[in-house]
Amino acid sequence: MKNAYEELTDHFCKIGDLQHVYAITSWDEAAMMPSGGGEARGKALATLGVMIHELTVSSEIGDWLDTCSNLELDEWQQANLREIRREYESATCLPSALVRESSLAASKCEQAWRSAREDNDWNRIKPLLEDVVAWARESATVRSEKTGLGKYDSLLETFEPGMRSAKVDELFAGLKTFLPEFAEQVIAEQACRETYSPGDHFPVDRQRDLGLKVMQVLGFDFEHGRLDVSHHPFCGGVKEDVRITTRYTTDNFFESLMAVIHETGHAMYEQGRPEGWDGQPVGVARSMGVHESQSLMMEMQAGRSKEFISFLAPVIREVFGASGSDPAWSAENLHHLYVRVERGLIRVDADEVTYPLHVILRYEIEKALIEGEVEVTHIPDLWDEKMMTYLKRDTRGDYKDGCLQDVHWHAGLFGYFPTYTLGAMMAAQQFAAAKREMPDILDQLSQGNVGDLLGWVRKNIHQRASLYTVSDLMTKATGEDLNEQFFVEHLKARYLPG
Amino acid sequence: MKNAYEELTDHFCKIGDLQHVYAITSWDEAAMMPSGGGEARGKALATLGVMIHELTVSSEIGDWLDTCSNLELDEWQQANLREIRREYESATCLPSALVRESSLAASKCEQAWRSAREDNDWNRIKPLLEDVVAWARESATVRSEKTGLGKYDSLLETFEPGMRSAKVDELFAGLKTFLPEFAEQVIAEQACRETYSPGDHFPVDRQRDLGLKVMQVLGFDFEHGRLDVSHHPFCGGVKEDVRITTRYTTDNFFESLMAVIHETGHAMYEQGRPEGWDGQPVGVARSMGVHESQSLMMEMQAGRSKEFISFLAPVIREVFGASGSDPAWSAENLHHLYVRVERGLIRVDADEVTYPLHVILRYEIEKALIEGEVEVTHIPDLWDEKMMTYLKRDTRGDYKDGCLQDVHWHAGLFGYFPTYTLGAMMAAQQFAAAKREMPDILDQLSQGNVGDLLGWVRKNIHQRASLYTVSDLMTKATGEDLNEQFFVEHLKARYLPG
Repeated sequence: MKNAYEELTDHFCKIGDLQHVYAITSWDEAAMMPSGGGEARGKALATLGVMIHELTVSSEIGDWLDTCSNLELDEWQQANLREIRREYESATCLPSALVRESSLAASKCEQAWRSAREDNDWNRIKPLLEDVVAWARESATVRSEKTGLGKYDSLLETFEPGMRSAKVDELFAGLKTFLPEFAEQVIAEQACRETYSPGDHFPVDRQRDLGLKVMQVLGFDFEHGRLDVSHHPFCGGVKEDVRITTRYTTDNFFESLMAVIHETGHAMYEQGRPEGWDGQPVGVARSMGVHESQSLMMEMQAGRSKEFISFLAPVIREVFGASGSDPAWSAENLHHLYVRVERGLIRVDADEVTYPLHVILRYEIEKALIEGEVEVTHIPDLWDEKMMTYLKRDTRGDYKDGCLQDVHWHAGLFGYFPTYTLGAMMAAQQFAAAKREMPDILDQLSQGNVGDLLGWVRKNIHQRASLYTVSDLMTKATGEDLNEQFFVEHLKARYLPG
Repeated sequence: MKNAYEELTDHFCKIGDLQHVYAITSWDEAAMMPSGGGEARGKALATLGVMIHELTVSSEIGDWLDTCSNLELDEWQQANLREIRREYESATCLPSALVRESSLAASKCEQAWRSAREDNDWNRIKPLLEDVVAWARESATVRSEKTGLGKYDSLLETFEPGMRSAKVDELFAGLKTFLPEFAEQVIAEQACRETYSPGDHFPVDRQRDLGLKVMQVLGFDFEHGRLDVSHHPFCGGVKEDVRITTRYTTDNFFESLMAVIHETGHAMYEQGRPEGWDGQPVGVARSMGVHESQSLMMEMQAGRSKEFISFLAPVIREVFGASGSDPAWSAENLHHLYVRVERGLIRVDADEVTYPLHVILRYEIEKALIEGEVEVTHIPDLWDEKMMTYLKRDTRGDYKDGCLQDVHWHAGLFGYFPTYTLGAMMAAQQFAAAKREMPDILDQLSQGNVGDLLGWVRKNIHQRASLYTVSDLMTKATGEDLNEQFFVEHLKARYLPG
């Protein structure tokens, strides 16, 4: 007879199998499905989603968890129980009517958002977003009562377990004062140097070849994954079969290449998680922030380093049949193009210096929204004010490139934004630790050798999956809890080395 | 409150949603998945398959079916109830231990079969196939007791509802005597005419373009489907998003093109089924035979007609940059190549004249196996004997191209083979009926106009889904029940017109 722990693992194995099918079918929806298949697909995935949810809130889980306290379990099994409990409590703490209403409101708002954004129409979206925020506040209140966390923290917890807004405030405080001034200096500095455009016609098949080559260099396992195309780049699929996507425009190769490197970072985390934990909560990625740290490790720490670009330059030239004597195709020029800083309006297009400012702006607004300190109607003014403060850009009346640019809030996601910048900080701190252990890691990158870096993240991050809390994970990997200094030092060294 | 009929349709809607996800994920497995993903995928699909099966045998269905007798239902709803009952009884009549053991034995045999076939090793597969046959006999016995059908008929019923081996014997009797002699005459006749090879290098991307063009001509709806590549061509996906595949060899374009036309025929049936029956048994394809009739309608009746090839020839030439003055690329030569008859060893490579002989051979052996009249150990000798009788080919010792060539028996599929030739007969009978109604249908094909033909199958076959039994469907569509004469006449007219 199976004991309660074995019952739990069997149950989550089953959930994992259904999640596998869900993940592949979702990838298909984004990367393969013809447009006419959308309605039936949405319905089919919703049905499967409900079945997965029902299995996750099954009361048997509670019973098995209660019984488990008597069992002797090893460290991984105990961590698995901890994660199962967290997931179960998080899934069961909201009444199902609340879950349903929130999801309906979000789906309605998200659908309207697509066209409202195009039409720059804030008034059309406002009442729908007010509904979404009302339900998010209600969810936060219920979660807060059950967990004892603050309201915003109870939502943040669902994306970044263990993280609290007091800590985020601390981490962001330094950046908030440092970055605006720093960005200005970098922009002034970069204005003095000449850069050259390598042209504006890059066939998609060549760009794809380049992406595949770089994935190979980064250690992507093509026996367990693929590269395809979708509207927005993402990393999907399952650990055993990771599906990353990029998108191509023929007028430049910069974006598709860095998107591939970024998503490959996510993919390496998935491919590198320990085997034998199918569907078990301890075996999955630790948090959104940690996941982002792995993509930024590849894209920002390694990918845009002068060393790696010096390795990439001849590879890129060969793919596009360009000459090394053309200054536009020199490693130096390509590096300059890849570290160019601009105060733009759009978060997803931002460089790593200004990106955190976009995140902090959103974090501050969403926290105040959830805590009930501001209302939806205040969002545009707050946005304009903060854009002016942080990035000196006037966005008044430009909702499209302002508060309507991201899907997150319209889809009911509050507490997600900070994880982008937490990930950037984690990546810098991890890379610094790896460099301390292996001082020649940048030299290796200039040879296109990522083996040691990959070994380091495999051992310190990937293979640990959700064994430790984020805080413990960072401390074990880097010797200290997360702090923003490594990120700041990284930016200084890369952008104002003088 | 929902009545019992509504409960049933909701339940089957849910099953349909899960089947949608299953279908897309299975397509992905064959067309997209990297090899390393296989193990996890197999497990995930097995779990989903079990959930679908559990929903299909749920005892609530029986209760709802009982209550439904009091309801007033229209013709479609009554047919839906009939099909639900058939599916429910078919799914519940075997004890689950028997289902599990059969499936394990088949999976073991199928896996071993792949390498045993390559190694021409009959003795390795024999004991495993004996297991599979033992379980198939047991299933047939249980089904036979529950349904009152004969043993083999109770398996045939699961692929071709309403069809009985007595009727198959009758239909095949004429072919069995007619075809061997006829094939000989055709081969002799064809030996006298000269054919020319159009070369042996056909780039895959051109072949793909050609396939897409022809799909367009045949009316495939690309808003609701795709063309991709897999090891064996198939038609998968769902009605709203039909996924067909082909395979390419660069040394000829004949096979990939006809595979595309064949699978497009299957796809047109799926795309043409009535809307609004998501997951309902009355809304799905009628039977394997009827499905095959739709693929053969496109491939054999229309696709290989002199008229359609005369339309295709310039399209093909344009794709491959060939000249119309080259005799190898003339419509006449291409038609000759497409109707060439040969007594080959391999069923899937056979032309439409010899194909039924391959099927009859298998049908006779599998019927005798299930009825307990012969044993697995007799298969090779029976095979050799029948190959000699029907196709004058000596296959002694050649298991690879003999009784090991097909996956069906090794995968536990008995009662499937006859549906190929039933489909060929249905297609001929349907095409003859369409031609009677619209005598210029072949003229239209020579213009690349399939509109009237498609309209005919849409109205008479596709839109009726599973509303009628196969026998009623054929009678309503063609004025009489299925018989072999139209197929025989078709072969005579095409292959020995003199």
